[in-house]
Amino acid sequence: MPELRKDPVVGRWVIISTERARRPNDFNTEPVRPRGGPCVFCTGNEDKTPPEIVAVRPPDTTRDGPGWSLRVVPNKFPALRIEGDLEPSGEGLYDRMNGVGAHEVVIETPDHYASLATMSIDAVADVFLTFRDRILDLKKDPRFEYVLVFKNHGEAAGASLEHPHSQLIATPIIPIMVTEELAGSQQYWQRKERCVWCDVIRQERRDRRRVVAESAGFIVLEPFAPRFPFETWILPVRHRSAFEESGVEELRGLAEMVGTFLRLMNRTLGSPPFNFMLHTAPLREGAVEYFHWHLEIIPKLTRVAGYEWGSGFFINPAPPEDAAEALRAAAP
Amino acid sequence: MPELRKDPVVGRWVIISTERARRPNDFNTEPVRPRGGPCVFCTGNEDKTPPEIVAVRPPDTTRDGPGWSLRVVPNKFPALRIEGDLEPSGEGLYDRMNGVGAHEVVIETPDHYASLATMSIDAVADVFLTFRDRILDLKKDPRFEYVLVFKNHGEAAGASLEHPHSQLIATPIIPIMVTEELAGSQQYWQRKERCVWCDVIRQERRDRRRVVAESAGFIVLEPFAPRFPFETWILPVRHRSAFEESGVEELRGLAEMVGTFLRLMNRTLGSPPFNFMLHTAPLREGAVEYFHWHLEIIPKLTRVAGYEWGSGFFINPAPPEDAAEALRAAAP
Repeated sequence: MPELRKDPVVGRWVIISTERARRPNDFNTEPVRPRGGPCVFCTGNEDKTPPEIVAVRPPDTTRDGPGWSLRVVPNKFPALRIEGDLEPSGEGLYDRMNGVGAHEVVIETPDHYASLATMSIDAVADVFLTFRDRILDLKKDPRFEYVLVFKNHGEAAGASLEHPHSQLIATPIIPIMVTEELAGSQQYWQRKERCVWCDVIRQERRDRRRVVAESAGFIVLEPFAPRFPFETWILPVRHRSAFEESGVEELRGLAEMVGTFLRLMNRTLGSPPFNFMLHTAPLREGAVEYFHWHLEIIPKLTRVAGYEWGSGFFINPAPPEDAAEALRAAAP
Repeated sequence: MPELRKDPVVGRWVIISTERARRPNDFNTEPVRPRGGPCVFCTGNEDKTPPEIVAVRPPDTTRDGPGWSLRVVPNKFPALRIEGDLEPSGEGLYDRMNGVGAHEVVIETPDHYASLATMSIDAVADVFLTFRDRILDLKKDPRFEYVLVFKNHGEAAGASLEHPHSQLIATPIIPIMVTEELAGSQQYWQRKERCVWCDVIRQERRDRRRVVAESAGFIVLEPFAPRFPFETWILPVRHRSAFEESGVEELRGLAEMVGTFLRLMNRTLGSPPFNFMLHTAPLREGAVEYFHWHLEIIPKLTRVAGYEWGSGFFINPAPPEDAAEALRAAAP
């Protein structure tokens, strides 16, 4: 029997479609395999990107020269522009403002063929430390209300370059999905005086069926009402609302879990394209008791079609309990 | 300068990205061209589908035999199951219920190579009349709160069969996107005592820049804050909340506009894959003053990536004013 399940944070129902149930091998996904460099993000082509904002590089190397292990550069084709004021205005019943924002690219490694699944823990930790530092820096700009960090891996997941990279976009507006998570978790707090994600973690740890992996600091789980097959959340076990307040050791722990999960995913699903998105509290909120930062990872296995676009109601052919079991079974 | 624009109904902001602006020819979309029949939806293969629910066929033909011009059959791989009760239950902090619902397929024509863009007005009108009649029939089932009619055209838009067809899913829950439209339009009504879509139509008719086509009964427009390039809405000019209360003449007018628009779209964008979704008032609402039914059409031209999935904030590289101009210019 198919099941309707409701996300406990935002109240979004999904359809877990057992009649169309699919096993890991049933998804016909092209594995992501780099066709080859060098590309504009490779060492030696530093002049092909806009000048670097920050980099992880030895002190004897020069800015925009070789020798780096990670670079952050402005996106060459930014969705938003860094200069200017918002100048909100109306047009009859419509509202608009200037598209002011920051759009940056984190080049995660000089190695065109590496990935977060194969890089060392230290190198992956540098990526997450860089996210933290960029958020802290962009927070100083009073025009911005939110920084969303995300990754498109593989062409089918929206990547236009195959060299390992992630991105961030700072906006003068809190994105609607974060607003919905804030509203849902605040309502839960008002009723229970507990963080809904902390409650989810407690219940999942007892239940075990949807837990993929765990460490002292982090838990990897398949959510109860996932929109997509093998949708995965990674959360800090201790309550934390602002990602940018994480310490070095915490982010090293996160790097370890992200690497572990991506290797399980690659073994289970054949190195699929994927997206990840970091949900943290808005820049001006500070530490809030009801929000809990988390990383959402979505392998790109199915097409989103008319029903989903028209309803917001996702049909998911992979029950999360089965997905978690398959991922756990891929552990070495 | 890129622009942030807010949808006047649901309050969703989008980014109209001029730095990444794209012209109709810049979208590298494979045209949808049927590879060939006969398939399970073709005449002569009526026994390959579940038994028909209704059909448009001459009186001297027999059920599930040839001679029909349109058939409605249950989906062979339904997302939801028609039998059973909801049996809502909890699991700790989670909510679930049985996946009860109807999932039907409207086979729009016996001609494997036809499409709504090439079929006669009468044949297209039969498709919309069938949607109406199926909604009226499913409304009798007290378990259902909503019927969403939609179409996936072309593999990239999620179609698994190329024979012209559309689908409907009846659910015991009002989909979240409809709930958001209802909430937004009700708020607008409370402030203005006017329907927000009626106001949109009035403003667009004066402004003209986003109007693609118009008839006595319908208007085709590019919305002010579209999520996708060439996203298009078709609305009845007179206020109507429930699609299923439309008369035969009205639906003939709709059929004419849908055909006209699809031909403009095919000429402008090279017969792209597309989805359409019908938004009508919930089954139990009846005629409401604040909701206005409409058809949303989305050509599949870009990939949705991590930023959109994480934020709900869509980056649209085609300003709707430019899209409307390109579509108008394609008129014969």
